[in-house]
This record gives sequence, C-alpha cells and structure tokens, in this order.
Amino acid sequence: MTNMVILFTGAELLVNQLLFPAQDDQKSNPNVFVVGSTLQRLLNGAEDVGLFKEFQDGTMRGFTYANRESFKDFNGDGEGFLSDAECQYIIKHGLDTLRAKNEQHVPGYPKLKLYPGKSVVRRLQSKGVLIQYFPLHNKEDLKRLSFSWYKKFKLSFQPLDDIRHYFGEGLALYFGFLEYFTFALVPMALIGIPYYLFDWEDYDKYVLFAVFNLVWSTVFLEVWKRCSATLAYGWGTLSRKKAFEEPRAGFHGALGFNPVTGREEPVYPSSKRQLRIYLVSVPFVLLCLYLSFYVMMVYFDMEFWAINTYHENPNIATSILLFVPSIIYAVVIEIMNLLYRCAAEFLTDWGESFFLIIGCFVCFQFNFVNCFASLFYIAFVMQNMVLLRQSLATLLITSQILNQVMEAFLPYWLQRRRNKKVHKRMRRLMGDKELPLLGQVQLETEMNTYLGTFDDYLEQFLLFGYVSLFSCVYPLAAVLVVLNNITEVYSDAFKMCHVFKRPFSEPAANIGVWQLAFETMSIIAVVTNCALIGLSPQVKAYFPESDTQLILIVVAIEHVLLAFKFILAFVIPDVPKHIQVKLAKLDFDSLEALKKRVSTHLHMSLTCFLIIK
Amino acid sequence: MTNMVILFTGAELLVNQLLFPAQDDQKSNPNVFVVGSTLQRLLNGAEDVGLFKEFQDGTMRGFTYANRESFKDFNGDGEGFLSDAECQYIIKHGLDTLRAKNEQHVPGYPKLKLYPGKSVVRRLQSKGVLIQYFPLHNKEDLKRLSFSWYKKFKLSFQPLDDIRHYFGEGLALYFGFLEYFTFALVPMALIGIPYYLFDWEDYDKYVLFAVFNLVWSTVFLEVWKRCSATLAYGWGTLSRKKAFEEPRAGFHGALGFNPVTGREEPVYPSSKRQLRIYLVSVPFVLLCLYLSFYVMMVYFDMEFWAINTYHENPNIATSILLFVPSIIYAVVIEIMNLLYRCAAEFLTDWGESFFLIIGCFVCFQFNFVNCFASLFYIAFVMQNMVLLRQSLATLLITSQILNQVMEAFLPYWLQRRRNKKVHKRMRRLMGDKELPLLGQVQLETEMNTYLGTFDDYLEQFLLFGYVSLFSCVYPLAAVLVVLNNITEVYSDAFKMCHVFKRPFSEPAANIGVWQLAFETMSIIAVVTNCALIGLSPQVKAYFPESDTQLILIVVAIEHVLLAFKFILAFVIPDVPKHIQVKLAKLDFDSLEALKKRVSTHLHMSLTCFLIIK
Repeated sequence: MTNMVILFTGAELLVNQLLFPAQDDQKSNPNVFVVGSTLQRLLNGAEDVGLFKEFQDGTMRGFTYANRESFKDFNGDGEGFLSDAECQYIIKHGLDTLRAKNEQHVPGYPKLKLYPGKSVVRRLQSKGVLIQYFPLHNKEDLKRLSFSWYKKFKLSFQPLDDIRHYFGEGLALYFGFLEYFTFALVPMALIGIPYYLFDWEDYDKYVLFAVFNLVWSTVFLEVWKRCSATLAYGWGTLSRKKAFEEPRAGFHGALGFNPVTGREEPVYPSSKRQLRIYLVSVPFVLLCLYLSFYVMMVYFDMEFWAINTYHENPNIATSILLFVPSIIYAVVIEIMNLLYRCAAEFLTDWGESFFLIIGCFVCFQFNFVNCFASLFYIAFVMQNMVLLRQSLATLLITSQILNQVMEAFLPYWLQRRRNKKVHKRMRRLMGDKELPLLGQVQLETEMNTYLGTFDDYLEQFLLFGYVSLFSCVYPLAAVLVVLNNITEVYSDAFKMCHVFKRPFSEPAANIGVWQLAFETMSIIAVVTNCALIGLSPQVKAYFPESDTQLILIVVAIEHVLLAFKFILAFVIPDVPKHIQVKLAKLDFDSLEALKKRVSTHLHMSLTCFLIIK
Repeated sequence: MTNMVILFTGAELLVNQLLFPAQDDQKSNPNVFVVGSTLQRLLNGAEDVGLFKEFQDGTMRGFTYANRESFKDFNGDGEGFLSDAECQYIIKHGLDTLRAKNEQHVPGYPKLKLYPGKSVVRRLQSKGVLIQYFPLHNKEDLKRLSFSWYKKFKLSFQPLDDIRHYFGEGLALYFGFLEYFTFALVPMALIGIPYYLFDWEDYDKYVLFAVFNLVWSTVFLEVWKRCSATLAYGWGTLSRKKAFEEPRAGFHGALGFNPVTGREEPVYPSSKRQLRIYLVSVPFVLLCLYLSFYVMMVYFDMEFWAINTYHENPNIATSILLFVPSIIYAVVIEIMNLLYRCAAEFLTDWGESFFLIIGCFVCFQFNFVNCFASLFYIAFVMQNMVLLRQSLATLLITSQILNQVMEAFLPYWLQRRRNKKVHKRMRRLMGDKELPLLGQVQLETEMNTYLGTFDDYLEQFLLFGYVSLFSCVYPLAAVLVVLNNITEVYSDAFKMCHVFKRPFSEPAANIGVWQLAFETMSIIAVVTNCALIGLSPQVKAYFPESDTQLILIVVAIEHVLLAFKFILAFVIPDVPKHIQVKLAKLDFDSLEALKKRVSTHLHMSLTCFLIIK
C-alpha cells in the first residue's frame, strides 16, 4: 500500500499508515492513512489558497510567508497562527487539487487509470478505492469548545470565534445567524404576548403590528448583512476573492490557464459548457420543476378534498384525515428530493455548479409549499382566521418537537449504541492495550456525516416564514420560535460536537443565497399581511357599501409599504463604514504596490487659464 | 501681478501673463494668466489623480510614470498619450488642490488671508480676486470633432471616443446614453405606428403592448449598464476608485490624513459633520421639500379649477385657461429652483456633498410633478383617455420644439451678436495686428458656462416617462421621442461646440443617480400601465358584474409583472463577463504584488486522514 503513499506525496503532505493488530475478518480491517502536514507546508498552503489574516495595523491582509513576521498573531515558528479549521481546509485543498498531469495508472491498481486534469482523490473515491476521508476531532479543543458552548446553561452569547476556529467560517456564520435571529425575535415576542392575551381583534393594533412587523423584518435583514460583514471581515473571508480560488475537486476538464490567476487548472471550454447547459441541464431542471409543481397541484387537490370532507362532517376521523395529504406529500417530497439531489450531484460532477443551486431551490420550494400551501389556502380561500391560528400553532409546535428529536437526540441515541459495539469489538481485538488514535478512528468512522448547513438554514427560513407571513393573525408565533431557537442552539451545538463526523470547514463570507431567500420572504410577508388586514372583519366593517374602495386602499397601502421597504433597504449600507474604509485601504495599498516613480525631461503644453482682477 | 504667479508655482504649473495692449477703460482690461503644464508634470499628475490607461496586455492599469513604457499608446516622450480632457483635468486638479499649508496673506493683497487646508483658488474666487477660470477650446480639434460629430448629416454612430478625448468621460457617457436610448426606442416606435394607425382600442393588443413595454424598459436599462460599463472600462474610469481622489476644492476643514490613501488633506471631524447635518441640513432640506409639495398642492387646486371651468363651458378662452396653471407653476418652480440651488451650493461649500444631491432631487421632483401631475390627474381621476392622448401629444411636441429653441438656437443667436461686438472692440483696440490667443480669450470669456449634464439627463428622463408611463394609451409617443432625440443629438453637439465655454472634464464611470431614476420610473410604469389597462372600457366589459374581481386580477397581474421585472434585472449581470475577468485580474495582480515567498524549517501536525481498501 506504500505506493498509495507515493501517490499523495505530490501534494507535499505527510502520509503514514495506521497499523491495526491482526484480525480474523479481513474486510473490517481497511488500510487507514493519517494525512498530516508540516507547519511549513501549511503556511505556504495558506498563501496558496489566499487566506487573509490580521496584519499588524489591524487590517486584514493576504497572508504571505515572506512577510509572515508582520502579521499580528504570528510569533515564533507560527505555531497556532492558523486556526484548526484553516489547517484542515489547506490539507483538504491540497488533496482535492492533486491532479494527474498526464494519463497514468494508479500504482498497484493496473486497471485504474488517471486522466490529466482530473482530481486523483475523486477518481479513487468514484472507483471505490478510497472509501472515505474526513478530519478527526481534536479531543481537548472539543471538550473546551463544548463546555463554553452549551455545557453551562446560563444565557450568554455563543463563542463564535471558537466555533469558527474549530469548525470553520461556514458553520460559525450559521450559529451567528441563529443567535442573531433569536435575539431579533425577542421584541416581536414581547409585543406579541399582550396581543395574544388581550385584544388582538382590535383593528388599529392589528395594522400597527403588521407595520412593525414589516419594518422589523427589513431592518433585521439589513442589520444582519452588516453583522455578517463584520464577522466575515474579522475572519478574513470577506476580503478573500472567490476568483483566486482554484476550482473544487469535482470540476474537471482539459488543463488550461485561469484567465484571472494565470494558474494552470482544468478549464471548461465555454462553448462546450454552453452546449451542455442548453442541451442537458436546462431541460433536466425544467423537468424537475414541472414535476415538483405537478406534485404540488396534486397535493392541493388532496388537501382541498380533505378539508371539504372535514367541513361536511367534522369529527375525529375527518380531522385526522386533514393531516393525511401533508404526510403523503412530505413523503413524496423526501423521495423526489433524494432522487433530485443524486441527479444534481451527478450533473455537478460534470462541472455545472448551478445544479446544486437549482437542486436546493427545488428542495426548498418543496418545503416551502409543504409548510405554507395549506396555510395560504386556509387564509385566503377559506378565509377562516380561527382555523389559521390553530394550524399555525400546531405546525410550529409539532415541527419544533420533531426537529429536536430527529436532528439531535435520535441520532445521538443510535450513536451511543454504535459506540458501545465498537468499544466491545476493540476490547475483543486488542485486549487492554491502549491505542487512543486507532480507537478514535474506529469510533468516528462509524459516525454519520454532516450534510452541510442547508437543512439548518431551511428550518430557520421556515420559522421566519411562520413569524412574518401570518404574524398579524397569530402574534404568538414569535414567542414559539424564540423558545424553539433557544433549544435549537443547544441541540445543534450538541449535534455538531457529538453526533456527526467532524465536517470539513468551508470558508464563507456571508450566508449566501439565504440572504436572498429571507428578503424574498419578507417581501411576500408585506403582501400577505396587507391582504390579511384587508380580510379582517373589523376592517371590512369600515367599508360597508363597497369592497372596491377597501381593496384599492389596501393595495395602495401595500404599494406604499413595499416602496418604503425598498427605500429602507437601499438607505442602510450593507457594510459598516469602518470596514468599507479598511477594504478600500487594502485595494489602495495593493494598487500602490504596483507603482514606482522616476522623473525625466521637460516639455511645454497649454491648456487652461485664469483671469485675475 | 507677478506675485500672483508665485502663488501658483506651488502647483508646479506654468503660469504666464497674457499682456493686452494699453486701453482707455481700466475695468475691461483684466489681468489674464495662461496656466499650462510640462508634459512631465502632466504625467506625474496622471499618476497622482490615479488615471487608468490601457496596458500592453489590453487590460487597464493605474498609470505610473515608472513603468510608462509598458503602457500601450505611450511612445517617445509620451506626447499625445494623455487625452486633451485628461490634461485639463490634471491641471484643474492641480489648481483646486493647491491649499495654504499655514495661515498667510495673498502676496499683493494684505487684506486677503489664506487659511490652512482651504483651497487657494476657491478663496480667491470667493473674494472676487479670481473672476473666472476655464479651459480654452482647441480650434483644430474642435473643427475635426464637430465635423465628424454633426456636420455630415448621414445616420451614423457618434464619435464617442473623440468626444471623450475632447470633453471628458462625463459628457461622452451622456451622448452615449442619448444615442443608446434613441436606438432602443426605434422598435417601440415601429410597433407603436400600427397601433396608432389601426386598432389601438383592441384589448389584447393593448395588454401585449404594455407587457412588451415592460420587458423593453427593463432590458433596455440592464443592457445600458453593461454598455456603460464597457465604455467606462475602455476609458479607465471603471477601475478608478473614488476613494483615491482628493476631496474637491469646495471641501475644507483642518488638515488631516485620509484613512484610505494616507494623504494629507482637509478632513471634516465626523462628530461636527453629524451635528451640522442634523442641526442645519436636515431641517433645511425638509423645509424645501415641504415648500415644494405645498406649491404642488396649490398647483393641483388650480389645475382642478381650470379643468372644471373648462368642462362647464368648453370654449377657446377656457381651453387657453387650461394651460395657465402649468405656466404659473413652471415659473414658480424656476424661481424656487434657482433659490434652492444657491442655498444648496452655499451649504455644499461647507462640505456637505449630499446637498447637491437633495437639491437635484427637489428640482427633479418639481419637473416630474410639473410634467406628469396633470397627466396622472387626467388618467386616473378624470379617466378621460382621449384628453390624455391629446395632452400627451401636445406636451411632447411643444417640449420638443421649446427645448431645441431654448437650448441651442436662442443662445447661439445671442452668442453671435456678442461675438460681433467683441470683434468690433478688438479691432478698435489693436487695429489690424493679429493676436489669435488674445482674441480667442476675449470671445470665450463672454460665452455662457455649461452647467453640467443634469438638465440634459432630466430632459431624457422626462421623455422616458412620457414613453413608458402612458405608452399603452398613446403608443405614438415613442415615435415623437425618437424624432426629438435625432434633432437633440445635433443641437446638443452644436451647443457643446459653439454655444458654451468649454467645460472642465469630469471623469465618470456611469450615469450615476440617473440609472436609479430611470429604473424607478420603469417600476412606476408597470403600475400605471396595469391601472390603465384595468380602466380601459374593453377590459371592464369582461367583468360586468363586479369591479372587485377585475381589480383583484389587475393587482395580481401587476404583482407578477413586478416580480418578473425584478427577477429579470437580477438575472442580467451588470458587467459583461470579459470585463469582470479583467477587473478580477487587476485585483489579483495588485494583491499578488504585495507578496513574496521564503521557506524555512519543518514541523509536524496531524489533521486529516484517509481509509483505503
């Protein structure tokens, strides 16, 4: 197997095999390699991937080994200068971007060919030679982190920097957002309670709440942009330019030169890509969208039928029947979703990154419909506010409980059982002699893989929907969401630390497409809230003679609110002033670095003149 | 007066006095100084102001004297490397940023003190010592430009690069936009004609036209962004960062250091600025807005009264009366506008740049109301489509004729008379001896000053409004606007070349706030067009029983269209791919310029591992 080691020396990484004691069954005894790196390699890697670290003057600068001394936290040989997550990222980058330069065989696997420009690791994975690779947990750091994170049950901010240090920026941003969102909801909740307790049938308060809700949701999202910019700048991901990164492992094609960086890397002939997008991707995506919408329509019919039957004779049986369509729909979604993700993943291997986006979008739309379709139906077709309140409450509470159980406790319980098994086997194998690393490897190999923040964000997004869309009918929603998120923080933290394999860290400068999703939701919320107010009997009472007048007024108000919303979003700068200055300074300094000055001979030219009294 | 020369040597510019022959009357004989510069100074200046020029590899780079040889058009001593407009800009920049370092007297003016950090030129101007300063026309270039621009009456694109070379990017972009807008309107016009000639009462076509109008206005604006980005990149203004420029002459305060560039320049204590904005600016601006709205309301009352009287007994007298309110309003506007501009200008001297913005906004809102208020009134209050068409047509045609006359021909006529006078005086003075430069100075001193592109853009904006807002009622509007713009190009070109003083060139990367204004207008257009369609009797005929249904459907369609519009605007990238790449490359190279590489000792650290079959 040493030839496998030779293969990876291309990445200048340290690879040594972890030897297991002899065993009876061969298959449960895979070859395990520990990949490490010299600090030297890591620091050079940090320069290659273009990490930004804090400079002496407090600004963030692209790290270079040459002037490493002038970076703030660099002392001695640079031990502890890079965060755990960064080291991990650099090594993974090294493995992923390890590409065969020319056509060759994998040493020891005569049948296994490598093609130029194609990632070696991915090739090995797809051929089933490489079963899996993942970062190991760091017991001490993990203990420290989990203590400061969720062990002590006092209300405190999360240790975002520690989280980022251990799990990377992507996850840290998620938890930052979760915390921010929860705190932002508190005022909503506080205002919601009296509405719930006393007179929420009162029209003026109704409108007041809706307007507050609108302003809140806008300001909330704008301020978050600033917060995340501040965080991301401090973590160096804001200044880091996407253009400089090499393409991810999945991306392959003939080797060529990146127009921006001039580095040699697989480039995809634009014409070919265009062709593929138009011939394969677009039809595929359209088909998926069509399917999803079709399923949605079927679901609507079922829902409609169920609700009607319930109305004809409301009893327990029919009230249970109300939930059947949603359940069927949910199941169908999960299946289609799975199929879609596989397809998208497969197509993404071709190098079409936008497939995952569409894939996420479709999955997202499924969930969106699943959660809100019935509510919209109840609100605007049946116009039954009491039922709307009921279903909102039930949806919120059930989803909250289900989430906690499904996300954290069930997996944890399974985990525990697995761990016991592994421990037993280990003891049987090697009696009492202690092999800490080997044991850890055995345990973590069995753990589930964390599939990324998508599902976590989706959950928050749906909660945001519950709060904003129908808030003025059910002001208590905010309270429930706050309660949910308080537990959510703990369960998610626990999940990350003890249920899943340690995920590879992903550098992230913002929450990406989710920002857009939340903003879209807040726009839809304006429309729904206006409509709900228009529908409320109290408001209708104001215009007994004609609906027309009422509708026109509601529409007018809605347009004004939307305009106000856009102006507000436009006025609030996305990046705080002091960070704008720092970013500008970086641009300026780097442009100045291109400049020198010399002086030469004289020459006359007239252009402009003055008249003086 | 030579001490005045000494004063300006600070800017390292060449200043020499233009001597007039002895004259009888003293006052008509001011001291005239010609300010020039060495090519050396210009090239260094180009570096100081951060001009971007085309590099050998076809990308735009910040010009540096040091590696001047590696810039594309730089040959020999760099003669003709900088455009006329750039030289001008550099010299003006040199004069404007000439600031007194410490408190001192103007040599020869014991009463006239200079304060540290305050622009010398501006000080002299405000004290009336410096009467005016402006760039001279370049007879040969002007002749060449004006020939290729408007002398030959064949339909051709404007020589934007020549315009930019002579007048600078700001004006070139205006003419580029004018041309683009005109060409973009041609399809609208072509589609409009059949609508006008045949059946524009037909409902479906009606809607079709409105939808086409919507898509057109969106695509038109998005594509313009790309065009202007391409132009601005080629001219080097796109890459040029605002942050690097020193503040304009008007801006003063204690000398400090710019946080970005680190240059010493007047900085305004933030706390003080805040205080001023809140105590002076905001109330002032609010007052102005209140006034303008008040005047608008009064105008509405008058309009209302006039229209009523016209309806009571429609005859010539009352039909004339219809125009009276608008005329009065226009006059009042002009006066308030003038006052406002003075105030804004004065306040801007304090360093509040956003005053001019607000000032423009108010003036803009005046014009907007003046042009469209009556139309909106006729369309949505009176709901009289025939009258709407009439007034649209009259407004368009009259404004077209008036513009041409007021903008170009009237000033030109006055100019001619003035020139004659000047010529006579010159001859009386110095008999037949020829003093070309002196003569030119005398002539151009008398010319009017061009007040910037604001009014020109405003005119185009209003025309855009006429086309988009009520298009589906009066599809012929586009035709009229196209006709108007064809003449507009010529009259504007003529105006720039022969009616006004040559303006100082302003570097511009885009049409700035006007992009926003046009986009806002196109959004409003969606609403108005939907409303107009909803109001049309044909559509009403579809819903005989209830208006409610009709309104709901119209609102729904409107929302869909708006959503579609936003998605369209979001999907089309603002900067073409190949320019994005070039910009990214610049960033990358400049960041790389900060980097070096050294290598040192080894060190071990574990992070990540593989399992291999």
